[in-house]
Amino acid sequence: MPLTHFNEQGDAHMVDVSQKTPTHRVATAVSRVTMKPETLKLMIEGKAAKGDVLGVARLAGIMAAKKTADLIPLCHPIPIHSVDIDLKADEKESCVDVRGVVTTDWKTGVEMDALTAVTVAGLTVYDMLKSVDKDMVISDIMVIEKSGGKSGHYLRTGEKSSHNESPRV
Amino acid sequence: MPLTHFNEQGDAHMVDVSQKTPTHRVATAVSRVTMKPETLKLMIEGKAAKGDVLGVARLAGIMAAKKTADLIPLCHPIPIHSVDIDLKADEKESCVDVRGVVTTDWKTGVEMDALTAVTVAGLTVYDMLKSVDKDMVISDIMVIEKSGGKSGHYLRTGEKSSHNESPRV
Amino acid sequence: MPLTHFNEQGDAHMVDVSQKTPTHRVATAVSRVTMKPETLKLMIEGKAAKGDVLGVARLAGIMAAKKTADLIPLCHPIPIHSVDIDLKADEKESCVDVRGVVTTDWKTGVEMDALTAVTVAGLTVYDMLKSVDKDMVISDIMVIEKSGGKSGHYLRTGEKSSHNESPRV
Amino acid sequence: MPLTHFNEQGDAHMVDVSQKTPTHRVATAVSRVTMKPETLKLMIEGKAAKGDVLGVARLAGIMAAKKTADLIPLCHPIPIHSVDIDLKADEKESCVDVRGVVTTDWKTGVEMDALTAVTVAGLTVYDMLKSVDKDMVISDIMVIEKSGGKSGHYLRTGEKSSHNESPRV
Amino acid sequence: MPLTHFNEQGDAHMVDVSQKTPTHRVATAVSRVTMKPETLKLMIEGKAAKGDVLGVARLAGIMAAKKTADLIPLCHPIPIHSVDIDLKADEKESCVDVRGVVTTDWKTGVEMDALTAVTVAGLTVYDMLKSVDKDMVISDIMVIEKSGGKSGHYLRTGEKSSHNESPRV
Amino acid sequence: MPLTHFNEQGDAHMVDVSQKTPTHRVATAVSRVTMKPETLKLMIEGKAAKGDVLGVARLAGIMAAKKTADLIPLCHPIPIHSVDIDLKADEKESCVDVRGVVTTDWKTGVEMDALTAVTVAGLTVYDMLKSVDKDMVISDIMVIEKSGGKSGHYLRTGEKSSHNESPRV
Repeated sequence: MPLTHFNEQGDAHMVDVSQKTPTHRVATAVSRVTMKPETLKLMIEGKAAKGDVLGVARLAGIMAAKKTADLIPLCHPIPIHSVDIDLKADEKESCVDVRGVVTTDWKTGVEMDALTAVTVAGLTVYDMLKSVDKDMVISDIMVIEKSGGKSGHYLRTGEKSSHNESPRV
Repeated sequence: MPLTHFNEQGDAHMVDVSQKTPTHRVATAVSRVTMKPETLKLMIEGKAAKGDVLGVARLAGIMAAKKTADLIPLCHPIPIHSVDIDLKADEKESCVDVRGVVTTDWKTGVEMDALTAVTVAGLTVYDMLKSVDKDMVISDIMVIEKSGGKSGHYLRTGEKSSHNESPRV
Repeated sequence: MPLTHFNEQGDAHMVDVSQKTPTHRVATAVSRVTMKPETLKLMIEGKAAKGDVLGVARLAGIMAAKKTADLIPLCHPIPIHSVDIDLKADEKESCVDVRGVVTTDWKTGVEMDALTAVTVAGLTVYDMLKSVDKDMVISDIMVIEKSGGKSGHYLRTGEKSSHNESPRV
Repeated sequence: MPLTHFNEQGDAHMVDVSQKTPTHRVATAVSRVTMKPETLKLMIEGKAAKGDVLGVARLAGIMAAKKTADLIPLCHPIPIHSVDIDLKADEKESCVDVRGVVTTDWKTGVEMDALTAVTVAGLTVYDMLKSVDKDMVISDIMVIEKSGGKSGHYLRTGEKSSHNESPRV
Repeated sequence: MPLTHFNEQGDAHMVDVSQKTPTHRVATAVSRVTMKPETLKLMIEGKAAKGDVLGVARLAGIMAAKKTADLIPLCHPIPIHSVDIDLKADEKESCVDVRGVVTTDWKTGVEMDALTAVTVAGLTVYDMLKSVDKDMVISDIMVIEKSGGKSGHYLRTGEKSSHNESPRV
Repeated sequence: MPLTHFNEQGDAHMVDVSQKTPTHRVATAVSRVTMKPETLKLMIEGKAAKGDVLGVARLAGIMAAKKTADLIPLCHPIPIHSVDIDLKADEKESCVDVRGVVTTDWKTGVEMDALTAVTVAGLTVYDMLKSVDKDMVISDIMVIEKSGGKSGHYLRTGEKSSHNESPRV
């Protein structure tokens, strides 16, 4: 079975990366929190007036990226080199779109760290707004692009590369 | 602004639950990991033969529920009383469906804990299978049902209640 | 020796609070970050224009309160009921003043949690501004007021009580 | 199957303790680190002169008790009320004996917390002395006594009860 | 005193590894959980039928290896490169034998990480089975082999080397 | 705005250190806990007789240095190479003076880690003595010296360099 997280006996293990060469690695992931239009409006107006939902969610996402190996059982601990999280309110789709970029120079990739960051940012948006809207849905969590490492460049079908533009992000 | 996570000055705070009465609280949340049919097939056959993707994801979800207050900035620490996570492969939809139930007897609800559990379980499914399929998407993260506490019973439109069947889950 | 954190053999231990009665407890603590006037000015203008130093520090303080028992060896884990952190720029004194209030209904007090919150908030202000000012000093970390529990009400000499005004904060 | 940590489907879960009544609970556990006589001698003389191996190990054990639910996947988070750890050098057996007592008033017992405390204390003794003795062995990790809760009093065969002497330890 | 974890004043410190050269390092450690024959039988049959005690313990051990520096006060944080944990039921000795191998390319060794992994795996076996057997004992926690680093190769007397067979494990 | 912790949009981010060269880095920070003379006397006599307040605080500080990236939102995780914490009772000033040195060979500096270490050591002194003195104040938390890295050597005005004496500390 080609699932690297299981050894020859079929037991879960943390796969050995000793022989991998450290390279610069970048991963971009996204998530989306869909809500009622009035919830989004409240959030947008709130920022202007008072509370900054997206600022809290951004911090939560950045801090979560650093906890990835603590959350995902077989992930390696990785000395992350940067985390950028962008949250945008989209009134047309009535949602918040989250985009996260994580980089490192290390022996293994950071797509789980980017996914964890955008996921926890999304959960925090939910938490901040749940007193007015329990019907929100978090969706579209996926890796958009991943570069560096032996497995090469991955770009999701239909997406435009942003890693190429700035080689080190 | 009716967002309880901001105080009168508009600053983020952890809302005071001192005066709330502890009641039995249950929250059910779900998530879904959609993948290529051949990925799902590999996962299903793998379990029979060797590695147990869903068993690892279940553990990750249970352990993540206990980290909710560490991940979501304004969540209260809650002494969780139970966590159940059910993961089902759905060959028709080519996905894994995750369902998590968390309970406590406490002053505040556990929907964030249930959401965190099913989300991290989903991320772990992604991690276990990403060596063969990078196009997976995690979606449909939402609260299905929530009972206990002052705000009363919440049942997502179109869902059947499972909390009623067994009052303490 | 009347130091409760040592047992009869003089060994450090976590003191037994089993027989204590849970009561509503409130603790208020403060800290101060003194900096160059131009640093403070940059911070204040930055908030209007771009980055929100105090918003990040507030979040860090709230999250740190939840880690108190993990940081202070003999502290009991406490289910915190609220955390409020107020940060004010004081141009006259060229400093940021941090004030934190933590509450719980529990068998032991929350002054360490309030102190940890204002301290980590102060450290975060330092971190956010250290690229322009390495001479900052964090000082005046102290408990201002503490109420609830057998040891009774404590109000620092020269301070005005705020716990009396709102019995549950 | 009577293993409570698996549900009816045979899946691991955190068992529901909602309906359990909080009672005062005490657990005593022990462990032993056996070493070369010269290692033990070095440790004993070191304490008098300089470094305090057992003091460091005691702290590590106390702090580890608070991490039990983070380490043992299906353990409930428990608001621990006290931790006492006693470490004794036994020159005759050439070992350090560790004894830990943990208490709480809660819905579930603290034997895992006591076991975790004495185990991590033992590992720390190993760490502090490993530069001079790599042959040390940690053994005899077991629960000696457990009281409180529905399952009643447990006293290991051949042991003398210490919980009876002081009903709340 | 040759205990490296104390400085010249006899105070505990985290020893400086700045000048050490990173090398490939491997450590193998073991532990054993002895139980009643009927407990072991239940565990073995349970796996076939329903719950997988050893699968849960394996995950717990892998995740614990990543927490070593958080548990053992003077351990350095280490970017672990692999963790393998093997648990075997031994009906003749009525026990579960745990064997863990941890590797890294770093400035300091991973024997504490391997010991922590097999210890927490053992504690988890205890936790999963304690509802039917409180008399279990965890023992024989020791380092079997350690390679890499200035201190050279260590092989416990009477053990066969497994590091030689595969130089990078 | 020259605050590196905000990106071009003014949003908080973890700044990219990918292109920085790893160099040997040292940071020295201090803090002070001022208390009543009788509290200090009790602490000093207690050490001789029984409990070792400063030993507990030193351990807490060392362990806290390893949690810096977990506490300070935008700090990078850093593989710390050494931590030394020195605590001195000063009867003339009626205080405990804390001095901490942290080193690493890495792409970013360790001043936040040194500050976190001396701060948590100070908080622990407070915790250990608060049963007899609630008026203690923690102050004078600052970086004394910092070497390594592109920004060059920093020595606080009026301080004597200790990094020069031993280039790798």
